[in-house]
Amino acid sequence: MLSGVGVSPGRAAGPVVVVAQPAGEPPAGPPPADPAAEAQRIGPAAQRIAADLNARAKAASGEAKQLLETTAMMAADPSLVTQAEQLVTTKQLPAARAVYEAAASFADALRAAGGYMAERVRDIEDVRDRVVADLLGIAAPGVPELTEPSVLVAQDLAPADTAGLDPAKVLALVTEEGGPTSHTAILARALGIPAVVAVRGVLAAKPAQLIVDGATGSVEIPSSPITPFAAEVAAADEWNGVGTTSDGLRVKVLANVGAPKDAKAAVEAGAEGVGLFRTEFSYLDATDEPTVEEQQSAYAAVLAPFHGKPIIVRTLDAGADKPLAFLAPDPEPNPALGVRGIRVSRERVDVLDRQLAAIVGAAQETGADVSVMAPMVATVEEAAWFADRAHAAGIKRAGVMIEVPAAALVADEIFGVVEFVSIGTNDLAQYTLAADRQLGAVATLNDPWQPALLRLIGMIGQAAIRAGKPAGVCGEAAADPNLAGVLVGLGISSLSMNASAIRKVGAALAKHTEDYFRQVARAALVSHTPADARATVHAMLS
Amino acid sequence: MLSGVGVSPGRAAGPVVVVAQPAGEPPAGPPPADPAAEAQRIGPAAQRIAADLNARAKAASGEAKQLLETTAMMAADPSLVTQAEQLVTTKQLPAARAVYEAAASFADALRAAGGYMAERVRDIEDVRDRVVADLLGIAAPGVPELTEPSVLVAQDLAPADTAGLDPAKVLALVTEEGGPTSHTAILARALGIPAVVAVRGVLAAKPAQLIVDGATGSVEIPSSPITPFAAEVAAADEWNGVGTTSDGLRVKVLANVGAPKDAKAAVEAGAEGVGLFRTEFSYLDATDEPTVEEQQSAYAAVLAPFHGKPIIVRTLDAGADKPLAFLAPDPEPNPALGVRGIRVSRERVDVLDRQLAAIVGAAQETGADVSVMAPMVATVEEAAWFADRAHAAGIKRAGVMIEVPAAALVADEIFGVVEFVSIGTNDLAQYTLAADRQLGAVATLNDPWQPALLRLIGMIGQAAIRAGKPAGVCGEAAADPNLAGVLVGLGISSLSMNASAIRKVGAALAKHTEDYFRQVARAALVSHTPADARATVHAMLS
Repeated sequence: MLSGVGVSPGRAAGPVVVVAQPAGEPPAGPPPADPAAEAQRIGPAAQRIAADLNARAKAASGEAKQLLETTAMMAADPSLVTQAEQLVTTKQLPAARAVYEAAASFADALRAAGGYMAERVRDIEDVRDRVVADLLGIAAPGVPELTEPSVLVAQDLAPADTAGLDPAKVLALVTEEGGPTSHTAILARALGIPAVVAVRGVLAAKPAQLIVDGATGSVEIPSSPITPFAAEVAAADEWNGVGTTSDGLRVKVLANVGAPKDAKAAVEAGAEGVGLFRTEFSYLDATDEPTVEEQQSAYAAVLAPFHGKPIIVRTLDAGADKPLAFLAPDPEPNPALGVRGIRVSRERVDVLDRQLAAIVGAAQETGADVSVMAPMVATVEEAAWFADRAHAAGIKRAGVMIEVPAAALVADEIFGVVEFVSIGTNDLAQYTLAADRQLGAVATLNDPWQPALLRLIGMIGQAAIRAGKPAGVCGEAAADPNLAGVLVGLGISSLSMNASAIRKVGAALAKHTEDYFRQVARAALVSHTPADARATVHAMLS
Repeated sequence: MLSGVGVSPGRAAGPVVVVAQPAGEPPAGPPPADPAAEAQRIGPAAQRIAADLNARAKAASGEAKQLLETTAMMAADPSLVTQAEQLVTTKQLPAARAVYEAAASFADALRAAGGYMAERVRDIEDVRDRVVADLLGIAAPGVPELTEPSVLVAQDLAPADTAGLDPAKVLALVTEEGGPTSHTAILARALGIPAVVAVRGVLAAKPAQLIVDGATGSVEIPSSPITPFAAEVAAADEWNGVGTTSDGLRVKVLANVGAPKDAKAAVEAGAEGVGLFRTEFSYLDATDEPTVEEQQSAYAAVLAPFHGKPIIVRTLDAGADKPLAFLAPDPEPNPALGVRGIRVSRERVDVLDRQLAAIVGAAQETGADVSVMAPMVATVEEAAWFADRAHAAGIKRAGVMIEVPAAALVADEIFGVVEFVSIGTNDLAQYTLAADRQLGAVATLNDPWQPALLRLIGMIGQAAIRAGKPAGVCGEAAADPNLAGVLVGLGISSLSMNASAIRKVGAALAKHTEDYFRQVARAALVSHTPADARATVHAMLS
């Protein structure tokens, strides 16, 4: 019996297929007989990989499409090819080795840049391994063609691997590395495949079959052969589209959106509104700050489908870990603990004011019911500053995200100066546990079921009840139907999630009473470990 | 009226002396007439700087001495000189420019390494500026010769600058950058000079005189000329050497030590024992792990002067931000949120077991009253694991540091598995506020007077009282006499600090009753800002 962090719920079992590891470091010799000809093999190989990834992107949709396109772009980047060609001609290296070395210097540069850039290292390595395999004439690394429904086991999955998965052939995903907010976890949830990450020792155990529980995080090696089974599909379609407990406590089921296409998907999935509208997309490709008019038009495209429904817009969340060209942050030793979110807005009030003007304009243009909140607020003083600024710009309801532990500890005072709060559980867990959400090695600590984190959320819920103002959750935690019940029991009044989770969570809330969810929450709060909390709540709610 | 973060208490006023900024980037031309002769100027200049710093180190003591020695070592490093000489001969650069460019490539490498190494960038730049000034024949950057008692104002002070200060001529220190745990702040406290850091705009205001309050963080530009005055020297010597409130509540006043010489200083200062013995010094210069015998002998040297007095030993606190050669951690995007402290011990149990054996051996050898605690504990499960391991090794009292917010939130359960806890306020503030303690730009957030942080400490204090077990504080907060009173009012039963603060804190505790400190603590808890908390407590205790 192994265990890890369950990141996509459901119980399934079947034969194991291990995802092929890349060939590794190709030998530096023998030197090519004709270096010029050898160098000329590299460009076409990279083109084939880029074309293959683009073809898979065409067949995919949503986040999967975006990931495959990003990876294809890296494969098509001429500077990697040029550098590798030079290594063949100047150092007499075989083409595969040259690509390997050129990619290493790219990866080093990304790693040194830290933060957001360092996260791209996995992508450049994925491109490298594919081009090297092509040049060596061996099978591409990644998921092999599946002949029967299987449990996939891997060190970690590259975004491009998971993006190409056929859910009908994949019973479950199990990885040695990764965390609850890794690409693998997010995509597994999007595809509805049970997944457990950070399962130390699963590859070394070489299991023939596995029984996987994505809710509890348990991964069992059966002692005798078993009959494969797939995760039950929850009767999610039974949800009537209005979030309530079985005794009628209203809990809005909202969507997280980050671009116009998400807004369409959210409306189709039955979202009652938007709990988190990430505005970064309107800035990402800009070398200069977009004008107020450009921002307003970008926001209006997201707001339009939600005419008359509530939408919470989050102001720009940039920092050294998510750098924007026109803000040019200094490099920081720990970008997650640096000048991010509202801390950037305090230094660049002009940028915030232009964004607030664009939001007000887009709300008037579309008739959407818009609230605005600031990210990374830590103190009452910051909350009051932001609320004043937003009100002055013409925003009626101003709020803050609670994702820094300090803000949770002064929630009563924060409710004194804002109209609402929204809890970002991903960052709140990261800071409360002091465990980087990007780092597989601390994934077991950074778990939304940690009793300490639930206690902090409970303090915010109690403060909300005392203030008579709403507290929502817009982190990954809200998308887990069991955890959603706990949050309601802690006093949370709205849940915001990816579109794919909306019906499932809506249906789960309708199954029990408010009072029962309170009992469930109490049981979770007094658990000693996240695994205990998960198992207890799972038993109480199923 | 400006404000910043008060980091060393006391009120003083006087004429301003601005610390000279370095000359900046020397021009890349004209090319030297005789490059070989030009290159040969570099070595002697670096030697002069190293000799000057070493001479100042000889005249200094304690931490100041250590800092000056470290900087001297960097100046004497032949690789910087060699690289600069090559730039003169190969690129025809003037010597000053060559030193500047060679230092830049060193600094880049340190910065890319991140964490602890990145903190050394300031030191290499200090060496660079001194050597460049010598080669250009201009005044060395840093503090000029003071003709009268003055308030020093600087962008930030290099360790080598503050180390050479004459306290008799310096009324106060004010810097634009820096944080409560910067070298400047720590040294100012050691020298007993009032200091306020992170005072944005003080240089641009070009004040002729300043009134500085290191307790409240206020920095006032007087509207008309005032008579200079120095900070009152507290009647610290009146302390009788036993930490109690005026009505007899026992609060042990302990020392933080990190090397045998600190132990001697702590005994001389009247410490009642050691609240934090950092064991890293026994590993720092080792490329291989020291043997159990080597560790035991290193620990015994620290324990010996405290025969019969209590000593809390902290097990190895390493990580990607404090790398040790034999543990070779992977680089991490946010080392402060990575595999540190007990997380390393979980992966390398053998290293922990050898250290525990050495500690038990050193305790037996010296007759010291030894307890052991683990750093960076986040969960009950980690606390129980460590306590079991320590008890099995023969340690009677096992505890954990609380420096991760999650541990504070489950303090009741942690007291169920350990004999004591010790709060590391520096890291606890960093995680609670999500504000890097190394980063000047977030220094106002990372403040030990943050009401949110005090509430978290209060929760631990209450849990300690419920459990009938001790909770100490061993971060910088304990060294501030006013904050020490707040901590006692929150239920903290021992305070551990640098030797220089011991008498001052001991005397401050003896001035009021336990009940009055509880009232003071309540006033701090309900403050809206750190500045309010500081000012209210200052008024109540003076």
